[in-house]
Amino acid sequence: MPASGPAATKTKYSFTDDYSEGAHPDVLNALLLSNNSQEVGYGHDSYSETARELIRRQLGCDDVGIFFVPSGTSANAISIAACLRPHEAVIACSSGHIVTRETGAVEASGHKIINVAPKDGKLTPESLTKALDDNWHFPHMARPRLVYISNATEVGTVYTKAELTALKRLCEANGLLLFSDGARIGAALTSSMNDMTLTDMLELTDIFWIGGTKNGALLGEAVIVKDPKLAEDFEFFVKQHGSLLAKGRVMGVQFAELFRDDDSLYFKLAGRANLAAEKLSRSIVGAGYQLSAKTETNQVFALLPQGLVKALQQEFSFYEWEKYGEFSVVRLLTTWATDPAQLERFNQIVLSWTPDAQKTL
Amino acid sequence: MPASGPAATKTKYSFTDDYSEGAHPDVLNALLLSNNSQEVGYGHDSYSETARELIRRQLGCDDVGIFFVPSGTSANAISIAACLRPHEAVIACSSGHIVTRETGAVEASGHKIINVAPKDGKLTPESLTKALDDNWHFPHMARPRLVYISNATEVGTVYTKAELTALKRLCEANGLLLFSDGARIGAALTSSMNDMTLTDMLELTDIFWIGGTKNGALLGEAVIVKDPKLAEDFEFFVKQHGSLLAKGRVMGVQFAELFRDDDSLYFKLAGRANLAAEKLSRSIVGAGYQLSAKTETNQVFALLPQGLVKALQQEFSFYEWEKYGEFSVVRLLTTWATDPAQLERFNQIVLSWTPDAQKTL
Amino acid sequence: MPASGPAATKTKYSFTDDYSEGAHPDVLNALLLSNNSQEVGYGHDSYSETARELIRRQLGCDDVGIFFVPSGTSANAISIAACLRPHEAVIACSSGHIVTRETGAVEASGHKIINVAPKDGKLTPESLTKALDDNWHFPHMARPRLVYISNATEVGTVYTKAELTALKRLCEANGLLLFSDGARIGAALTSSMNDMTLTDMLELTDIFWIGGTKNGALLGEAVIVKDPKLAEDFEFFVKQHGSLLAKGRVMGVQFAELFRDDDSLYFKLAGRANLAAEKLSRSIVGAGYQLSAKTETNQVFALLPQGLVKALQQEFSFYEWEKYGEFSVVRLLTTWATDPAQLERFNQIVLSWTPDAQKTL
Amino acid sequence: MPASGPAATKTKYSFTDDYSEGAHPDVLNALLLSNNSQEVGYGHDSYSETARELIRRQLGCDDVGIFFVPSGTSANAISIAACLRPHEAVIACSSGHIVTRETGAVEASGHKIINVAPKDGKLTPESLTKALDDNWHFPHMARPRLVYISNATEVGTVYTKAELTALKRLCEANGLLLFSDGARIGAALTSSMNDMTLTDMLELTDIFWIGGTKNGALLGEAVIVKDPKLAEDFEFFVKQHGSLLAKGRVMGVQFAELFRDDDSLYFKLAGRANLAAEKLSRSIVGAGYQLSAKTETNQVFALLPQGLVKALQQEFSFYEWEKYGEFSVVRLLTTWATDPAQLERFNQIVLSWTPDAQKTL
Repeated sequence: MPASGPAATKTKYSFTDDYSEGAHPDVLNALLLSNNSQEVGYGHDSYSETARELIRRQLGCDDVGIFFVPSGTSANAISIAACLRPHEAVIACSSGHIVTRETGAVEASGHKIINVAPKDGKLTPESLTKALDDNWHFPHMARPRLVYISNATEVGTVYTKAELTALKRLCEANGLLLFSDGARIGAALTSSMNDMTLTDMLELTDIFWIGGTKNGALLGEAVIVKDPKLAEDFEFFVKQHGSLLAKGRVMGVQFAELFRDDDSLYFKLAGRANLAAEKLSRSIVGAGYQLSAKTETNQVFALLPQGLVKALQQEFSFYEWEKYGEFSVVRLLTTWATDPAQLERFNQIVLSWTPDAQKTL
Repeated sequence: MPASGPAATKTKYSFTDDYSEGAHPDVLNALLLSNNSQEVGYGHDSYSETARELIRRQLGCDDVGIFFVPSGTSANAISIAACLRPHEAVIACSSGHIVTRETGAVEASGHKIINVAPKDGKLTPESLTKALDDNWHFPHMARPRLVYISNATEVGTVYTKAELTALKRLCEANGLLLFSDGARIGAALTSSMNDMTLTDMLELTDIFWIGGTKNGALLGEAVIVKDPKLAEDFEFFVKQHGSLLAKGRVMGVQFAELFRDDDSLYFKLAGRANLAAEKLSRSIVGAGYQLSAKTETNQVFALLPQGLVKALQQEFSFYEWEKYGEFSVVRLLTTWATDPAQLERFNQIVLSWTPDAQKTL
Repeated sequence: MPASGPAATKTKYSFTDDYSEGAHPDVLNALLLSNNSQEVGYGHDSYSETARELIRRQLGCDDVGIFFVPSGTSANAISIAACLRPHEAVIACSSGHIVTRETGAVEASGHKIINVAPKDGKLTPESLTKALDDNWHFPHMARPRLVYISNATEVGTVYTKAELTALKRLCEANGLLLFSDGARIGAALTSSMNDMTLTDMLELTDIFWIGGTKNGALLGEAVIVKDPKLAEDFEFFVKQHGSLLAKGRVMGVQFAELFRDDDSLYFKLAGRANLAAEKLSRSIVGAGYQLSAKTETNQVFALLPQGLVKALQQEFSFYEWEKYGEFSVVRLLTTWATDPAQLERFNQIVLSWTPDAQKTL
Repeated sequence: MPASGPAATKTKYSFTDDYSEGAHPDVLNALLLSNNSQEVGYGHDSYSETARELIRRQLGCDDVGIFFVPSGTSANAISIAACLRPHEAVIACSSGHIVTRETGAVEASGHKIINVAPKDGKLTPESLTKALDDNWHFPHMARPRLVYISNATEVGTVYTKAELTALKRLCEANGLLLFSDGARIGAALTSSMNDMTLTDMLELTDIFWIGGTKNGALLGEAVIVKDPKLAEDFEFFVKQHGSLLAKGRVMGVQFAELFRDDDSLYFKLAGRANLAAEKLSRSIVGAGYQLSAKTETNQVFALLPQGLVKALQQEFSFYEWEKYGEFSVVRLLTTWATDPAQLERFNQIVLSWTPDAQKTL
C-alpha cells in the first residue's frame, strides 16, 4: 500500500494546502436539494446545463463549450490532448504544474513539454520567444503549438491584463494556442494585483479552466473551450480519459451554486481566501520578518527563523520549503474556510516569539 | 457544443440506466457530517482509510491495496495500464464495456484488446483457449497477459463460482492475470443466481473493482489490487490518469458509509435493485410476454409488441434495443431508488394493454 | 535472447515467405553505383527526389506526397497515426495485417481498431456498413474515421476496380478516409484478376503504400499521401516513429531503380512472382489436389494429404496452416527470385507421390 | 511536400554531417556477396547471428542480447520504451539527442524526460543528484528510473572511464538504469581522450547501442541489452515500433563485416574520422584562430571571422552555429570517407585568408 505522507484527519490546524476542507455549506446544501430528481447522465443533466448558462453569462458569451471534469490533472491532460496532434508540443514554465506535479500525464498522452524559465512563476514573451528560437528544426523537433500558463501561478502570482495580452499577441503571431490552468483562477481574479475579468480570460486565451476543487466545491473543474471545432469533439477526450462522470450532475449542481448570482459565491470565496493570506502576511511583516515573495493571492511565502517555525509547528501544519542557515522559507495556504481565530492565534505566536522563548518551548 | 441525446431533467419516469438519481440519503448525510474536518489530500484522509479498513474486513484480507477512482472508465483504463507492459494485450468479450463503451480508452493508453465471442455476455474457457491459440506468433503478435470480464456482465448475467474458478485456473495455467469490472458487482453478488462473496471475488481474480456510482454513491469505484507489487505503484497510475482527487475524502466518506455495517448498505441497495427488476420481469411474463434474456440482476431484457412499447413510452423512458417485426427488445434498468409505485404503474399498463387499446391512444 | 523460430541460412528451398532473398541484382547494382556521392540526409537526397518523380509519373500526378519508410509495420503505424486523432478509430478486417501481425503497433500509438469479418480476405461494403451501424454511440465510442484494407490481401486475393470503387464511395458518404496496405501491391496489380493501375489506386484511396521489401528491394516502402495538408506534416510522423533514415538515399536509390522505366522493373518482378505461384497451383491441381483458395497473386493455399506434405518437407520449407483429418492446408509463397528448377522439382514430387510412396520414405 | 532544407546531391564538399556518403566499400561488397542466399526473416538470419557472435566476442560476453534497428531514433525510443513503465521517467541532458532532435519520440511512447544541465555536453553526478532531489514527490511526480547519456556526446566530447564509473555507481545507489546512445560510440572509443573499451561500456551501462549509420554502414544500429529479462522481451518492442525488418540480413551483413576482425573495420573507420577532425582543428589553430570546444572526436567547433566563413562557404558546406559580433561558431563534421585532398584545400583557405582578401571576394 502506498504511504506518501501523513494519513488521517489533521490534528493541527493546517495551512498546508487549499483542499483540506469539504465543500462550502451552500454547495453541499445544493447537492442535498437536487438529490432526488432523475437526470440524464454524462453531463447532460439539467444542473450541468444551468451551470453552463450561468458561467456563460459571466463570460459574456453564449456559445462557448463548457465541460466539467473531476480534477485539475484531468483538466490539463484532456485539454492538451484535445489541442495537440502527436507531433506538436506544449511550451510551459519549468515551474508549471504539468511539469512538476502531474506524474507525466501530458507525456503519457504522447506530448512533449518544452520547458522555459519562469519569472515570478510567470511565462514571459522573452522566454516564449527563446523557446520558439530553439525549436525550429522540423521535422526533427516537435512543433510548438500550445502555450500553457497558470493564473494564479504555482507561486501565487497573477498575470496582469497587459502581460496576458502580450503573450496572446505573441501566440497569435506564431500560430500558437494559449491555454490557462485555472486551479486558482478565483484567487487570481480577486487578487489586489488583478485587472481582469472572466471575460478577459476568455478573450485572451483559447482554452482555460475554472477550478472548483480549490474554491468551494467537493470536486470539479469547468473547462472553457472557445473554438467551436475544438468544442465539438471535446467530450470524446473527456470520456476517453475516464473523466465523463455518469452522474455529471454532481459537478453541475456545485458549479450552478457557485455561479448562481452575478455577484457570485465563487469569487466571494476566493476573495475570502486572499484576505486570509493578506492577514497572515501582515502578521509576519508586522513582526519584523520578511516575505520571500509578494503575497498576491492565497499563498504566503515567508522567511522565518527556524525557532519560530518550530514554535508555529506546535499548533499548525504547513510546508517548510527550503532552509537558509537559521531561516526557512515556509509556505502557508489559505481558503474560504480558513478560521479567523486561527489567523489570530498565528499572529499571537509570531508576535510573541523571541529567540529566548524558543529555548523554553 | 456536444448534444449527444436528451438534455435536462427526465420528464418521464426513467428505466433507462442505473445512474439517474443522486446518492442514497445515508451517503449524502455522511458527506454532510464529514464536511468540516480538515483532511489530508489525495486519498490519505481518515475517511478513505476507514473505508479501506471496512472493505478489507468484508474481503477477509488485511493487506490488499484499495484505490478510489471517480468513474468506471477510469477504473478499467487505470487497472489495465497498471497490469500490462506495452507489448501485452488484454482479452475481452466483444460485448465488454472496454470494447464497446469507453471511447478506446484502453487503446489510448497503448494496449491491444483481443476480442472473443461472449456466451450470455460471459467469457468462457473455450473462447479464452481459442484466443490463446490464435495469438502465439511472437513477437509479431502482442502477448496475451490479462483477461477482462464483467460481473455482472453487460447483459445482466452473473458468473457462478464454478465458472469463475474455471477461468481463473485457465488463466493461471497460461500466465494470465484476471481482472473483473465491478460496475454492477453489487447486483451480481445479490443475484438469485449468485453463489459468491466478495472474498471469492478477491480469491478468484487478480484485480477487480467495486462500483459505487451505480449503487448508491454520487461517484466512485474502489479498485482492489491483490498483488503487493502492483499495489505499490498503483497510485502513480491513478494520478497520471487524472483520477487522484485532491479531496479524496469525497469518495472515502461514501464508501465508508456503504460498507459501515457487516450487513452492508451496499449489498442492501443492490438487492433492492434486483428485486425491482424481478418485479418488472414478473409483470412482463405474467402478462404473457417473453423475456429475451433471463433476468439475473438489475437489467431486464424483454420482447414486447411495439404497440405496448409505445404505450409504455407515454409514461416511461427506456432503451428500445432492437426491432423484430412487430416486436422490440427493450432494456429496463432498476436501482435501489426505483419507485415501487412506478413498478406498479408499469405493471398496470402491461396488463391492461391490448392491441386494440393501442389504437385508442 | 529471443528464439522465435529457426535461425540461420535456410537449408531447404523455401516457399515460406517472400522476403527470404536479398535485393534484385539491378537494385543492388544501383546502390553500388550511387555509393560515393555526398547527399543531403533524411530523405532529401537526389536519389529519393528522382524516385519520387518516377513514381509520380506512374501515378499520373505531380503533387502527391511520397515518403520512404523501412518496413510495412512502420508504413501502417505511421500512416494511421497521421490520419487519426486520438478519439478516432480505424476499421479493418479481422484478418488484416495490423490486427494479426504487428504486435499492437496501431494501438501502441493510441488507436482503436474496429474489427469486421472479411470475405475472401476482403473488406466489403456490407461489413463496413455494419461497423458503422455498431459504432455510433458518441462520445462513448471512438469515432470511425479510417478504413484499412490490403491489396493484395493477407490471403492473396485482389480488389477489383468495382469493389474498391464501392468501398471508396461508401467511405466518402460517411466521412471516412480509405487506406491501403501495399506490401504486395505489385502482386495485386499484376494479378490476372486485376483491372486497376497505380493511378486507380491513387484515385480510389486517400493514402496507400507501395511495398519494396517483398518485391525486389532490400528494404523500404513508399507511402503515397494524396491530401496536401496530410502530406505537409507527414514527415514529422516518419521521424517520430524512428523511420526517417539519415541515409534516406538507401531507399531512394532502390525505388528509383525499381521505377526507372515506364515498363517498370517493379511490376516485372511482381509478375514473375505471380507466374511462379501459378505454376505451383497448376502442379497441385494437375496432380488432382485442391486449392483451398483461388490463387490470385503470389500466395498459394492448397489442401494436401499429410503424407505428401511430409514428402515435400524433405526438400522444401513452407507453412503448414491448418490440419483437417489426414489433410493439411499449406501456404506457399513465391517471389521474383523463385528458382524455376525448384518449381519443377516441386512438380515432380507432387506428381510422383502416392500414399504408398509415403510408407517407404 | 515537405521541404526542410536543401535537396539533391551536395554541390560543395560537405562537412555538414557524418551521414552524407553511402557505406564503406567493404560493407557494400559484403551485401553483394550475401545477396543470393535464402535467409530466415526478421533478424534470425545467419548473417545477423554471425554479427551478434562477433560483437559478443568484442564485448567479452557470451549471453548478451543484441538487436539491430534501422535508425538512432528507433534505437533510443525502443530502448527507453522497453526499460520504463508508464509512470517512470528518463533523466537526460537538455542537449541530449532525445530532447532536441527526435520529434518527441520518447514522449510519444508516453515517457517524461527530466532535463538536467550538461557540462561540456556530459551528464554529471551533480546534475543527476539534483534531478533526484527535485523529483521525489510521489506519486505526483513520475519516478526517475533511467539515465540517458550519449558517448560521444552531441558536442563531440567523450566520457572517461572514471566519469562513467561515477555515474554508474550513482545510478546503482538510486535504483536507476544507465543507457548510452552510441550513434558515435566509434568516434568516442577511438578518441585520444578515451580510456574505455566496448567491454567497459557493457560493464558500466545497462543498455547501450553501437551506431552503424554514422560509421560505415548504410543503416543500422546494434542495441546491446545486458539484462536477460529485458532482452527476452526486447524483440516485441522492436517489432511494435516498426523496426523489425523482414530482411534483417541487411543489417546483419553490415555489422558482420564491420566487426569481422578483432582489429575491426568499425574502429578503424571511426579512428579515421577522428584523425580528419584533428587535421581540421590543427589547420584552424595553426592559422591563429580558436576552437570553441576541444576537439575530442569527429566534430570540430571553431570560432572564425565571418569573412573567413564566407570564403570557406565558397567551396564547403557546414553549419554556422552562432554569431558573436564579427565571428561565428562553425561546426565541421568528418567521417571515414572524408577526402584528404579536401582537408588540404580547407587548410589552404584558412591559412591564406586575410581580412583584405575578403573584400576582394
